[in-house]
Amino acid sequence: MSDFPPSLERLLNELGKLPGVGPRSALRIAFNLLKQPVERSQALSQAVLDARSRLKPCQECFNLTEGPLCRICEAPNREKGTILVVEDASDVAVFERARDFRGLYHVLGGTLSPLEGRGPEALTLEALVSRVKRHPEVKEIVVATDPTVEGDSTALYLQQLLKGNPVKVTRLARGVPSGGDIDYTDETTLLKAFENRREF
Amino acid sequence: MSDFPPSLERLLNELGKLPGVGPRSALRIAFNLLKQPVERSQALSQAVLDARSRLKPCQECFNLTEGPLCRICEAPNREKGTILVVEDASDVAVFERARDFRGLYHVLGGTLSPLEGRGPEALTLEALVSRVKRHPEVKEIVVATDPTVEGDSTALYLQQLLKGNPVKVTRLARGVPSGGDIDYTDETTLLKAFENRREF
Repeated sequence: MSDFPPSLERLLNELGKLPGVGPRSALRIAFNLLKQPVERSQALSQAVLDARSRLKPCQECFNLTEGPLCRICEAPNREKGTILVVEDASDVAVFERARDFRGLYHVLGGTLSPLEGRGPEALTLEALVSRVKRHPEVKEIVVATDPTVEGDSTALYLQQLLKGNPVKVTRLARGVPSGGDIDYTDETTLLKAFENRREF
Repeated sequence: MSDFPPSLERLLNELGKLPGVGPRSALRIAFNLLKQPVERSQALSQAVLDARSRLKPCQECFNLTEGPLCRICEAPNREKGTILVVEDASDVAVFERARDFRGLYHVLGGTLSPLEGRGPEALTLEALVSRVKRHPEVKEIVVATDPTVEGDSTALYLQQLLKGNPVKVTRLARGVPSGGDIDYTDETTLLKAFENRREF
C-alpha cells in the first residue's frame, strides 16, 4: 500500500479507524470522495468538525445537545414521570427510533468497570439521584443498561443508590428476542426467558 | 429522526452519502467520533480536505498523485514496455494490491457511454495514443476495462484507435473467477470460459 500518495494514505488511515470500515471500504469511500465535487468533501469535513464541537451533554439528562437542554428534555409533550437510564447517547437514538417510549432519559456515560478503572464518579449516577430528588414527579426509573455483567452490576449499584427515594426502579425484561430463533438462543437467555414467563 | 440536534443530523446525512454506509452505520460512526477526543475528528476532517485538494491526475498516466508524475510513473524499476489501461484510479490500487504487475498504467477516467453522454473526448484516449507515439519502448497495451458492455466497447474503440501503432493490444482473460463456484456462475461467463479453455 506504500505506493499511495501521502494524503491518500492518511485519508485511508483515518477512514480505517471508523467502526465497521475495513481497508476495502476505506478505499471505496476515499475514491468516491475524490471523484465527487470538492463541495462534498468540504461538507463532510465541516459536518464532522461542527458536530464534534457543537454537541455537548444536556445539563439535565446528558444526552447530546447543542443548547443547554436536549430536545427531549425540552419537549412539552414527554411524560415526565418515567426516566429511562441508558449507557450512551447512542442508546437514546435506538429507543427514539422505536418511537414508543414517551418518557425522559438519563445517559450514564458508560458502565461501572473496576477492570477499566471506571468507578461511580466516572458516571452521571449522582446527577441522576439529585435529579430524582429535584423532581418529585418522577415515579419510575427504568434501567436499560446492556444485559452484560457490567450492565447488570451498574443497574444493581443504581438500585442501591436510589433506595430511600420514592421511585420504583425497574430493569428491561430479559427474554428471547422478537424474530429470533429458539435453536440459536444461548442458555442464559433461555433460562431468563423461562423464569420470566408470562400468562397469555 | 428529527429529534437529533441539527449538527448531528447533518453529520448523519453526510456520512450516509458515503458508499456502503447506511443509516445504522452512519449512527455508529457519528457516535464513535463524538466519543473520541476532538483531535480524531480534526484529523479525519483535515485528511478529507487535504486528499481532495492535493490529489491530481498524473500528467503521464492520470493516476492520482500529489506531484506532476505519480509514484508508479516515477519509479525506476517499473517495466516500461507494458501499459495496463484501467477505467479509474481505484483500479490501479486493486492491481497494485495484487503486487504482480510491474508495468505502467493508464487511467481512462471511465468508459464510453453514449447513454450518459460520455464520448471519447471525455476520456484520456487521445493522451494514451500520443503517449504510445512518444514512447517507442511501449510494446503492449493490456486493456483492463470492466467486463461489461461499456467496458468491452471502450476496449474495442481503443483497439481501433491504436491501429497503425507498433503495439500489441490485449484484453484481460475472461473465465470463471478463482475460488468461485461453477454452480453460481452465470451463463455468459461459463460460455467465455469454455471458449477460452486452455490445455494443461
